[in-house]
Amino acid sequence: MGSSPETEHPVKAVGYAARDPSGVLSPINFSRRETGDEDVRFKVLYCGVCHSDLHSIKNDWLNAKYPMIPGHEIVGVVTEVGSKVKKVKVGDKVGVGCMVGSCRSCDQCTSDQEQYCSKTIQTYNAHTVVPTYGGYSDHMVANEHFIISWPEDLPLDAGAPLLCAGITVYSPMRYYGLDKAGMHVGVVGLGGLGHVGVKFLKAFGIKVSVISTNPNKKEEAVSKLGADLFLVSHDQTQMQAAMGTMDGIIDTVSADHALTPLISLLKPNGKLILVGAPTKPHELPAFPLLFGRKLVGGSLIGGIKETQEMIDFAAKHKITAAVEIIPMDYINTAMERLQKSDVRYRFVIDIANTLKSA
Amino acid sequence: MGSSPETEHPVKAVGYAARDPSGVLSPINFSRRETGDEDVRFKVLYCGVCHSDLHSIKNDWLNAKYPMIPGHEIVGVVTEVGSKVKKVKVGDKVGVGCMVGSCRSCDQCTSDQEQYCSKTIQTYNAHTVVPTYGGYSDHMVANEHFIISWPEDLPLDAGAPLLCAGITVYSPMRYYGLDKAGMHVGVVGLGGLGHVGVKFLKAFGIKVSVISTNPNKKEEAVSKLGADLFLVSHDQTQMQAAMGTMDGIIDTVSADHALTPLISLLKPNGKLILVGAPTKPHELPAFPLLFGRKLVGGSLIGGIKETQEMIDFAAKHKITAAVEIIPMDYINTAMERLQKSDVRYRFVIDIANTLKSA
Repeated sequence: MGSSPETEHPVKAVGYAARDPSGVLSPINFSRRETGDEDVRFKVLYCGVCHSDLHSIKNDWLNAKYPMIPGHEIVGVVTEVGSKVKKVKVGDKVGVGCMVGSCRSCDQCTSDQEQYCSKTIQTYNAHTVVPTYGGYSDHMVANEHFIISWPEDLPLDAGAPLLCAGITVYSPMRYYGLDKAGMHVGVVGLGGLGHVGVKFLKAFGIKVSVISTNPNKKEEAVSKLGADLFLVSHDQTQMQAAMGTMDGIIDTVSADHALTPLISLLKPNGKLILVGAPTKPHELPAFPLLFGRKLVGGSLIGGIKETQEMIDFAAKHKITAAVEIIPMDYINTAMERLQKSDVRYRFVIDIANTLKSA
Repeated sequence: MGSSPETEHPVKAVGYAARDPSGVLSPINFSRRETGDEDVRFKVLYCGVCHSDLHSIKNDWLNAKYPMIPGHEIVGVVTEVGSKVKKVKVGDKVGVGCMVGSCRSCDQCTSDQEQYCSKTIQTYNAHTVVPTYGGYSDHMVANEHFIISWPEDLPLDAGAPLLCAGITVYSPMRYYGLDKAGMHVGVVGLGGLGHVGVKFLKAFGIKVSVISTNPNKKEEAVSKLGADLFLVSHDQTQMQAAMGTMDGIIDTVSADHALTPLISLLKPNGKLILVGAPTKPHELPAFPLLFGRKLVGGSLIGGIKETQEMIDFAAKHKITAAVEIIPMDYINTAMERLQKSDVRYRFVIDIANTLKSA
């Protein structure tokens, strides 16, 4: 009986799980561990719906373990803390992002880059150490190291997506130095990641160009999000005019697309940062990198310390995601709409008010 | 008559030129400008034979202008200086590398990165502003800004290749921070660039792994050049064992080759720097860049200030190229051997003693 999600741990929990690669989500009874000395237990209030939830439940990355309870943009309120917990207390608002564990001793972990630890434990669908279950559930328990303290003035619902979408774009801006006022930075793709990317860049005092395949997003990019310029990626005239003007580009697109036209937009020493991961390899010609000392780099979420910094920065600058709040039982429809990019820009599940016991 | 290389300028010169894409070099009478106020004129003593000379004379890059006098690893002794010249005086030893001009006013030029100026004038085969003729010739004249002061204790013959091969590998080590003692850096390809790359890295106190297709180069890499490790790139066992161990890699290879196995050798935050430029685009999968925040960057020679710094560093650390000194009339045979990589590691032409008047 120990191997059943419902009984492997002592504390009963309810959630929504995918059972197979159809990805259809339905109610599940499962269980979570008791609150350990260093653990924080919290009631989930909201959980964002990340595009990687969709990939995961459909086993697009061939690593799915079912039943799978997705969700890694989780906010809630603390209900119990272990005896050694210092970071938060009962009643505090907290968040959990993409990680709930790492080795805590490697070079990456000891330099606050737990996301690059080879033993990172993902918030859900981890199965190297223990099975983990995500935030489409009534409550969570996690080691306090992986708990983010939630600022009083940051909305819980519209803030939840920052825990993945936000840190994914914020971390490369900081690491690659694309956070200096007066720079000109492009954002490729105006979806869950891209739209918060524009907001962070503007908060850094940066001139922002949104680069999109969809001309209809111009009005929204410029008027609502505050982008300075909007380029339609297949408009040769617009792209030519912008050549050599950007210090960096944050490329959020996971569909196959050409990098060379983006590299052309960069100034000498410019940086094209990939945070989306198409399944097919990109084509990368060497000449445009050499002539201009440009680079193509990657980045993956962020460390816990940096995630806290990002959340505090967001609170200070009033940055939240644009969200559509949905009830739990709307999730399968939401996933269908997400597949068609029919959301501006993030679904967030109102867990506390709509997830009923199964 | 103004358009003839022999008569367009007032000062007679002799050299060796390619006349067509056969690339065969033969004696030529041509002319150079008078010594301007800011110009330095010098007698050429030695000139290195760069692999790009071979590409250029054969019009591999489809930008050849004939007659073409190659050579951009040029050292000599000053014979005349203009009235405003401060950097050197008659009798001084000097060098000229890949550039003899740039706009001097753009962001790149004003930050000592003339190599990325859009108006850089190449030492030979430039034809955007004026035709330029390189160092396979009896003398040179260039604006003092592009003149490198030669340290007394750096050999002229074995030092000449540093002006292109040396700066090409030195500059990315500095810019990308692969110059910290205790790091582990790989060098891909043990040719003209790679072998001096190993020497610079060792001078920085770095652990060096040479990665080569040719197992026969191991002895030389380790015993003669001081590399710490040698990896045969098609030996899966060796490559597997070295996975995730390197802070950076300098990739000097211009033949088509796979980047993914090299990216695997990098630690998190590792940097793969391309200084060779295959004509076909590389395949670049996004996942390995994201998971490990790795980057693929390019680099092209170096600025004038940095070239001087590199030459002074080389003198201090007794770094020279391994050279085979040849007479001028051996150049066509040398080019054939270079095509087959049959040189360890750089031909240098003894211009002063072997170039006769045509």
